[in-house]
Amino acid sequence: MNDKPSVIRETDEDARNQSRILVHTSAYAALAVIDPETGYPSVSRVLTATDDDGTPIILVSALASHTKALLKDARASALFGEPGKGDPLAHPRLSLRCKAERVDRDGDAHGRIRTLFLERHPKAKLYIDFPDFSFFRLVPLDASLNGGFGRAYILSAQDFAIL
Amino acid sequence: MNDKPSVIRETDEDARNQSRILVHTSAYAALAVIDPETGYPSVSRVLTATDDDGTPIILVSALASHTKALLKDARASALFGEPGKGDPLAHPRLSLRCKAERVDRDGDAHGRIRTLFLERHPKAKLYIDFPDFSFFRLVPLDASLNGGFGRAYILSAQDFAIL
Repeated sequence: MNDKPSVIRETDEDARNQSRILVHTSAYAALAVIDPETGYPSVSRVLTATDDDGTPIILVSALASHTKALLKDARASALFGEPGKGDPLAHPRLSLRCKAERVDRDGDAHGRIRTLFLERHPKAKLYIDFPDFSFFRLVPLDASLNGGFGRAYILSAQDFAIL
Repeated sequence: MNDKPSVIRETDEDARNQSRILVHTSAYAALAVIDPETGYPSVSRVLTATDDDGTPIILVSALASHTKALLKDARASALFGEPGKGDPLAHPRLSLRCKAERVDRDGDAHGRIRTLFLERHPKAKLYIDFPDFSFFRLVPLDASLNGGFGRAYILSAQDFAIL
């Protein structure tokens, strides 16, 4: 994403706000990881929330292949933004490039993240404390916002962090 | 996806049918590729249709980063299945591992694929013939079906091909 073709617009406050809103209102994302067995990318659905600095959070099971992949290779990408009715490409979405950091269950951040996750997903209380479940923070590197046809922006990590 | 933990159920005709239906009724998918510049996975939204042998089809622009990635590295993954109301993880979805093959515009298959794509996406006629747009066939290698909590299956390419 280092090249900047002419179809990419200049990132402005509207684009930053739209990106933050996409992350902060999504119940789920499509998470892409690299499968350590095959080297192929692998995409699956995960529930999401947002940490208090704007970093996306996911809750995943150690039994799932995306979790096994992230524990071996932290490089990831997450697609936020739910298509509504009509053309799926007319709805805004954000492709985030990120590094997944496992949240230590005994660390200071765990309680805060658990609370924030349950606010967005109250039903997750049924399994949130199961021993095979972990939180990961998807620490942003950069992102591509597509606000609809011809409305493309490249964002830095700072562009949608809460500072 | 070669290991088969105990949470994976035996693939049966119901699982095969559910997988085919997910591919055949999806208007879009989350496509994961490997970004040749960074080596990171990258996930974005694409419109989909299905070729007459059951192979998923996508229509993408040469200006988009996923297309540049696929032209350098054909390894891909696509997530099918749209979440409806309620818990996003209660809705079935299919993670397909696939190899993307560009469809030659002058080849025999192009006309057939163009017709099939327009059947699912009539409004794509506005840009389907633009010179920067191409079809790719996402040739299946294997797939993971999640039919909801605890309903996980591994499928071979044959399991959801139309033979």
